[in-house]
Amino acid sequence: MNTTEKKPQVVIIGGGFGGLYTAKALKNAPVEVKLIDKRNFHLFQPLLYQVATGSLSPAEIASPLRLVLRHHKNTQVILDEAVDIDPANKRVILHDHEPIDYDFLIIATGVSHHYFGNDQWQFDAPGLKTIEDAIEIRRRIFMAFEAAEKETDPQKREAWLTFAIVGAGPTGVELAGAIAEIADRSLMGDFRNIDPSDAKILLIEGMDRVLPPYKPELSASAAKALTKFGVTVLTKTMVTDITDTTVTVRQGEEIEQIPTRTVLWAAGVKASKMGQIVAKATGAKLDRVGRVIVEPDLSVPGDPNIFVIGDLANFSHQGEQPLPGIAPVAMQEGQYLAKAIQKRLKGQPVEPFEYESAGSLAVIGHQEAVVDLGFVRLSGFIAWIIWVVAHIYYLIEFDNKLVVMVQWAWHYVTRGRGARLITGEGTLGKDEKVVTMRQEIATR
Amino acid sequence: MNTTEKKPQVVIIGGGFGGLYTAKALKNAPVEVKLIDKRNFHLFQPLLYQVATGSLSPAEIASPLRLVLRHHKNTQVILDEAVDIDPANKRVILHDHEPIDYDFLIIATGVSHHYFGNDQWQFDAPGLKTIEDAIEIRRRIFMAFEAAEKETDPQKREAWLTFAIVGAGPTGVELAGAIAEIADRSLMGDFRNIDPSDAKILLIEGMDRVLPPYKPELSASAAKALTKFGVTVLTKTMVTDITDTTVTVRQGEEIEQIPTRTVLWAAGVKASKMGQIVAKATGAKLDRVGRVIVEPDLSVPGDPNIFVIGDLANFSHQGEQPLPGIAPVAMQEGQYLAKAIQKRLKGQPVEPFEYESAGSLAVIGHQEAVVDLGFVRLSGFIAWIIWVVAHIYYLIEFDNKLVVMVQWAWHYVTRGRGARLITGEGTLGKDEKVVTMRQEIATR
Repeated sequence: MNTTEKKPQVVIIGGGFGGLYTAKALKNAPVEVKLIDKRNFHLFQPLLYQVATGSLSPAEIASPLRLVLRHHKNTQVILDEAVDIDPANKRVILHDHEPIDYDFLIIATGVSHHYFGNDQWQFDAPGLKTIEDAIEIRRRIFMAFEAAEKETDPQKREAWLTFAIVGAGPTGVELAGAIAEIADRSLMGDFRNIDPSDAKILLIEGMDRVLPPYKPELSASAAKALTKFGVTVLTKTMVTDITDTTVTVRQGEEIEQIPTRTVLWAAGVKASKMGQIVAKATGAKLDRVGRVIVEPDLSVPGDPNIFVIGDLANFSHQGEQPLPGIAPVAMQEGQYLAKAIQKRLKGQPVEPFEYESAGSLAVIGHQEAVVDLGFVRLSGFIAWIIWVVAHIYYLIEFDNKLVVMVQWAWHYVTRGRGARLITGEGTLGKDEKVVTMRQEIATR
Repeated sequence: MNTTEKKPQVVIIGGGFGGLYTAKALKNAPVEVKLIDKRNFHLFQPLLYQVATGSLSPAEIASPLRLVLRHHKNTQVILDEAVDIDPANKRVILHDHEPIDYDFLIIATGVSHHYFGNDQWQFDAPGLKTIEDAIEIRRRIFMAFEAAEKETDPQKREAWLTFAIVGAGPTGVELAGAIAEIADRSLMGDFRNIDPSDAKILLIEGMDRVLPPYKPELSASAAKALTKFGVTVLTKTMVTDITDTTVTVRQGEEIEQIPTRTVLWAAGVKASKMGQIVAKATGAKLDRVGRVIVEPDLSVPGDPNIFVIGDLANFSHQGEQPLPGIAPVAMQEGQYLAKAIQKRLKGQPVEPFEYESAGSLAVIGHQEAVVDLGFVRLSGFIAWIIWVVAHIYYLIEFDNKLVVMVQWAWHYVTRGRGARLITGEGTLGKDEKVVTMRQEIATR
């Protein structure tokens, strides 16, 4: 077989932080890169909650993959879905295209929502992973205030003004804080029949504190800030049922049914189905939520040419817990792999991957965040500034930083939420229309 | 009947330029204003084509009505659909709410697409009136390039790279110019299998020139600029059929079937259904496209308390033609009505409405526009500057001007189109998926 003319083929599945940063770091490497994604854009997921709460527009946190990689002459973006892998023949099977060959395969397809066996809840409690999710959540939040404005029955009105967020990880905390700000500040003066600040925001967490993966003192600071913003924090509280008009919770032995028309899901994730495909094709083991357990060099046990990175990977060779599913881990894994592949092509030895913690961050609201930089833990205004700077810094890679900065500055001054458009189906918030929309999701 | 305590009720149906500017101009009037709209935002429609072509995000040209009117303490925004009017009892019948009473009723519900009896074309040739339309057109334009990139059959690839715009009014001209710029500049370097500048853009017009309502010399300038940008202008050309893979055109006796996967409709409008409701309820006459023929004071013949303004009105008391369906006409009509109502409440006489032409504008592309200010007609760079300044000026009313200016400045420098997200259904551009999406529209 004559392969001397052909450069080594690096195939990357997934254009999130892991996949994109691998491709970027291979810009000048003597390889051909093919980046496969179902969508034509990279999504800056840490700011997705700002789309869901009307502060930013989708395009401000999404960058077309072809645009980001246009100067990477060794890189081809393929808009397609990888449906299988064939390690024996070193090929990836695509939905639309012919199979493509690889020498190195990097799988970075991330995770999706996990309802712990209650998939029927997904219609009444949408999660936040995609642009479409964010638009749907935005529609529900702002339509709830509209429905309350036109509702004359006090009990029904209260249900429209009750927002329940399930799960108090960073996303749940950020959503709860943002909805509190919407109710107290952004919508001030907008309505004539209701006072938006009457809204009740419930943050429901099964563990004994908010932000469970963080240090206890930061959890305490976050809980205090949330309470200050008017969020009711319910810890050690399990959700036992969700319908279109209620959420049922259990605290110890006590069970309560809370009337609410808006439940948001930020409680759990499971690996994308590519995890199972990898397991089946290579014999790799999966963890409890379907993530692929990887070797110290991020390869799959038994196949040194297949790597899994980002949220889909369970990397347990550093510390007691697997590395968390956050953007910095995925980015560092991608950059590591780009170097590792080049070393291997030169016959050089490859060191195991090692994550350098960039710290943990969560924003709660206006001038309120918590930050753990390892050597120091902060909350309040300074933490909030660090959060803003860190996110602008990472957006620097993309075109959108200037627009996001202007939006944030404007938002900071006005507390406005100009992007609170109610678009899509179910616009008017009548019960029958909500059902229509729900059925529509069900048939997708 | 005791009405001494109640202020006169002004009810406005429609939050476009006509309705919103009426409400704004009534801010300090001794009346109560109710503004009814199905959507929660005002849409700056003159820039909608920039959303459809990936330059701006929806929220950048849409402002929440409640936000715009939050300081209007005499004004209530009602998110609802007016389904009928009852002049005998001076009431508006709503879809969700109880009927509401009016002393003055202003109807400004605009127009929608008109396919001249070929409503089946709407699925293969979407028009551009709503945010959802713009997102769908954006999806189709950018997906066509993606589909061409993965298509190996040269003829099919050419059909994906052929864009037909039906109708060479301002919207058609702006769409054609923008797509030409996308093909020649914005996507440069993005693809590996196709050269986007191979795209063919056809602008199809039944009359003998582009921009038929404008002066012939401006039409000639516009046609020249379009040709320079690579648009093929087909005048005196009728569209006789549209399918998902072809557009059939007739020039004189000659009939040609052109393979294309993207047809956009900018050819005709008809009045919204409120026109017929007004005609039925008041006996008012409608013109050929369903617009209500109004009196010199914009009232409906026979009922001095009902007014029709904006695109829905046919005002023929000035010049040979009815006033055109453009934003400045609607804005001036709204401002006139706000004054007229206050004069009538004081028992003062009301002068007939008179439109002061703000000129005609159309933008063709980078540094190219045509402008008719009445006393002078311009094309090229100066016209383009006037176009930019005029649009920024009107956006000044809203929060979004700063962000739009930053976007435009960035776009001007980079020629990039960061908002070119392919979202919604049918993401991958496979034939069966396009059909799915088409069926979905059909069942809406």
